[in-house]
Formats: sequence, C-alpha cells, structure tokens
Amino acid sequence: METLKVSSRSQPKSVAGAIATVVERDGQVIVQAIGAGAVNQAVKAIAIARGFTAPHGMDLVTTVGFSVIEIQGTERTGIKFIVEPKKGER
Amino acid sequence: METLKVSSRSQPKSVAGAIATVVERDGQVIVQAIGAGAVNQAVKAIAIARGFTAPHGMDLVTTVGFSVIEIQGTERTGIKFIVEPKKGER
Repeated sequence: METLKVSSRSQPKSVAGAIATVVERDGQVIVQAIGAGAVNQAVKAIAIARGFTAPHGMDLVTTVGFSVIEIQGTERTGIKFIVEPKKGER
Repeated sequence: METLKVSSRSQPKSVAGAIATVVERDGQVIVQAIGAGAVNQAVKAIAIARGFTAPHGMDLVTTVGFSVIEIQGTERTGIKFIVEPKKGER
C-alpha cells in the first residue's frame, strides 16, 4: 500500500490531492506523520481530500493508529492514518 | 450527538476512555479540537480508544472535517472528528 509522508511544512491541499488520487486508484492509502505539526497538516489534508472525492460519490473514512518509525537509528512514534472509501459506498 | 472538546493539555488516555464509553453507549461521538496541539491529542486519543473497544469486538473509524467555532465572539476553524464503529462490525 502506498505511504504518503507528511511533515509540518507539507501543504494540506497538495497532500489532499495525492490522497484522493491514490484512494481512487488503489482503494486505500497510508498517511504517516510524526509530531503535532505534521499530524495537524495530515488531518487537514484528509478533511480536504473528502471534498475532492465527494463529487465522485465517494466519502472517506480514516483508521487512526500509532506506528514506530526508525529515523537515523532512533525509534520515534508516529501516527499512521489509513484512508479509504466509506464502506457501502464502493 | 455528544461532543468531546479536546485541548492541547488534554490527557489522550482520559479522552480515549470517554470516546470508547460514548461510542459504545450512543454508537457515535464527535471529538472537537482547535490548533495543532489539540488536534494531536485528539488523534492520539482516537488511536488509544481503538484499543479500548477492540476487546469488545469493535474497531473504530473516523470521519474528519472542519468546523467553524465561535470563541468569545471570534470565529475559529477547528477540526471535527466523528468516531463510530467500523461498518459491518456492529
């Protein structure tokens, strides 16, 4: 499954476009963020992506979890969002 | 529908307990947060809440949206999370 990595400097609208594109193509996408600023941008992107898929009759739901990511030899705990179409819609 | 307001100083584990309780009772809960710190705590709380409902055979999914909230006469844009059981599970 494709993973989109979001930072605190990511543009929510650009990430939203990528989310919508990958979900429509693959049926699912993982969005990964570490730190409050990145999590905030990821959440905004997911909200905006709903507006991109809605005209195609698809609403998006998100499953939120933790994920341990190794960065330069150090383990950090990030947030993993699995974004997919709302069940029963596709 | 019950709304839980989360701030940057909220304890994710406490909020998670409230989310699990309300979803099991009402089938749905709204979690509201304004600002990156609050959004981050809300997301952590939703992830932890999945661990609280999982032993009861219920996984949780979240629908993410924006919401305009008036605070002391000023309009601010917050994030609204609708948390509910994954369709097909209950």
